[in-house]
Amino acid sequence: MARERNRRPEFMRRPVETQNIGFCPFCPGNEKLSKEIRRYDSQNGWQVRVVANSYPAMQVEGSVNRSPHGLFDSVSGIGAHEVVIETPEHNEDLPDWNREHSILVWKAYRERMMDLERDFRLRCIMMFKNSGTMAGAGLSHPHGQILASPVTPPAVEQMLDSAYAYFGEKERCLLCDMMAQELSEGYRIIEENESFVAWLPYASRLPFECWVAPRRHAHSFARARDEELIVFADFMKSVSRRLKQALGDFDYNLVLHTSPNRSSDIRMHEQWRTLELHYHWHIEILPRMWPQAGCEMGNGIFINPIPPEEAAAFLREV
Amino acid sequence: MARERNRRPEFMRRPVETQNIGFCPFCPGNEKLSKEIRRYDSQNGWQVRVVANSYPAMQVEGSVNRSPHGLFDSVSGIGAHEVVIETPEHNEDLPDWNREHSILVWKAYRERMMDLERDFRLRCIMMFKNSGTMAGAGLSHPHGQILASPVTPPAVEQMLDSAYAYFGEKERCLLCDMMAQELSEGYRIIEENESFVAWLPYASRLPFECWVAPRRHAHSFARARDEELIVFADFMKSVSRRLKQALGDFDYNLVLHTSPNRSSDIRMHEQWRTLELHYHWHIEILPRMWPQAGCEMGNGIFINPIPPEEAAAFLREV
Repeated sequence: MARERNRRPEFMRRPVETQNIGFCPFCPGNEKLSKEIRRYDSQNGWQVRVVANSYPAMQVEGSVNRSPHGLFDSVSGIGAHEVVIETPEHNEDLPDWNREHSILVWKAYRERMMDLERDFRLRCIMMFKNSGTMAGAGLSHPHGQILASPVTPPAVEQMLDSAYAYFGEKERCLLCDMMAQELSEGYRIIEENESFVAWLPYASRLPFECWVAPRRHAHSFARARDEELIVFADFMKSVSRRLKQALGDFDYNLVLHTSPNRSSDIRMHEQWRTLELHYHWHIEILPRMWPQAGCEMGNGIFINPIPPEEAAAFLREV
Repeated sequence: MARERNRRPEFMRRPVETQNIGFCPFCPGNEKLSKEIRRYDSQNGWQVRVVANSYPAMQVEGSVNRSPHGLFDSVSGIGAHEVVIETPEHNEDLPDWNREHSILVWKAYRERMMDLERDFRLRCIMMFKNSGTMAGAGLSHPHGQILASPVTPPAVEQMLDSAYAYFGEKERCLLCDMMAQELSEGYRIIEENESFVAWLPYASRLPFECWVAPRRHAHSFARARDEELIVFADFMKSVSRRLKQALGDFDYNLVLHTSPNRSSDIRMHEQWRTLELHYHWHIEILPRMWPQAGCEMGNGIFINPIPPEEAAAFLREV
């Protein structure tokens, strides 16, 4: 429950078309409209700004209270909700940035995530990016969000549990094994280099859903080394250009899945013990071509009309 | 994967606004455009038609093959995908139908579900309804869908598992206990009669998300008795009118959660043994006011700006 978000202008109405409505609070000149947390400058002015979300889903101040309510449980919405304004250029998104800028953006995300991990109240630090109306973006200026919460969200918990169970049985990382199968079959791979792989996962939920992961097993994006981040930035630019060339200006969510903030979990879960070994960070790019309907919302079934093998063959040709 | 759905006209484009585009394949006069499965007539012509989905997610013919693919599993998409054209009137949806018509529609759903349960290949028979563009509807003429699949979908499995675990511990039904708490607190109840309760669940994912369930413990909608179905039809009409008066013409998904087709599960799960006792059928009405974004799609966190207690107070006043 986030009452603050009630103030968002589009509340109770269909979201307005986000393209170029004239005024943009994230464009240079309007810096005073948002509370700045961090800023990355060049000689031409700021390049990346991190600001507090004006309609935050989590509040920074306060302590985390967990309370029962009959059958139900509640925890106070303490955390962080930041917006990373990725560029001063209103119309330049991920595929358009130059090399130096791409690196700066991913370094900014890494820095914010490392900083938030120091807060022992915060258990899960999530990064995601909504681009386009169909993907739930409220503003068209390229930006991402960092949401830090005092609980591990259900979808993250499920992913962690699966990886832990698999490791318990095989003593190998699930994502490492998935990537090994993808690389040996090749059908669903769209791009690879010495450090990263991009593929459309088996039975993907959405058409052109694309995952990116480091070849080398690594559990935490926040702990990626500089030299890895540089290759990653190049790789993400290349993958996103490929998607854009194939799909045009497509609406998408980009979601980073990385290790939770283990040190904040005072329950000392057994499964956190092997986190470095069993969890593997990765990016999911989720193109949003149509709204999810009753089938997806109610039953968790995603109907995908384009097999990833065909979509990947198409993307490799681009 | 459903290649058939690739032929849908809106594929790869944003869905077009569905309102009154002139031609409607579900309106009287265009019956020949769809393959009829069942038809309910009155002296004024048909009242409800059940037809095969022209872009089916499942195919009726064939046998269910389960096969491994390295780490992954596949099962052939054998099942049924039917469309229930709920009325000949293009602009009359659930809140607008008269009593007799409401009863007929719900009886039609019950009959189709009972019929499909006789097919031992089909494990889960799902009913949902998409209304409005934001809810993923492709056509504005009021209709619902029945999707029968040879596997239990993940979201359904999770709900069944939770109910089973709760019953194992308490020897009581989880939904019965939830309803008892809701009724004793009253804050989130919006309507009730001798047989049904409608409430906005604790910490609901979406603003005005509404659940409807029979007071009397019952696991299967398909097995509802005539006298229950009559009260249910009246109750659903009343609840949907209330929502429409409060929210205007709102986009929504309506999802029926009912018992899976136990007899089709040759694994003879231990947890199917007590299904009649631990599972409780119910309806979820999911208003879709904005697209789900990276937070929901990637992490399973739903941010709701309107606490259900306030939304329910508002709805009770209507």
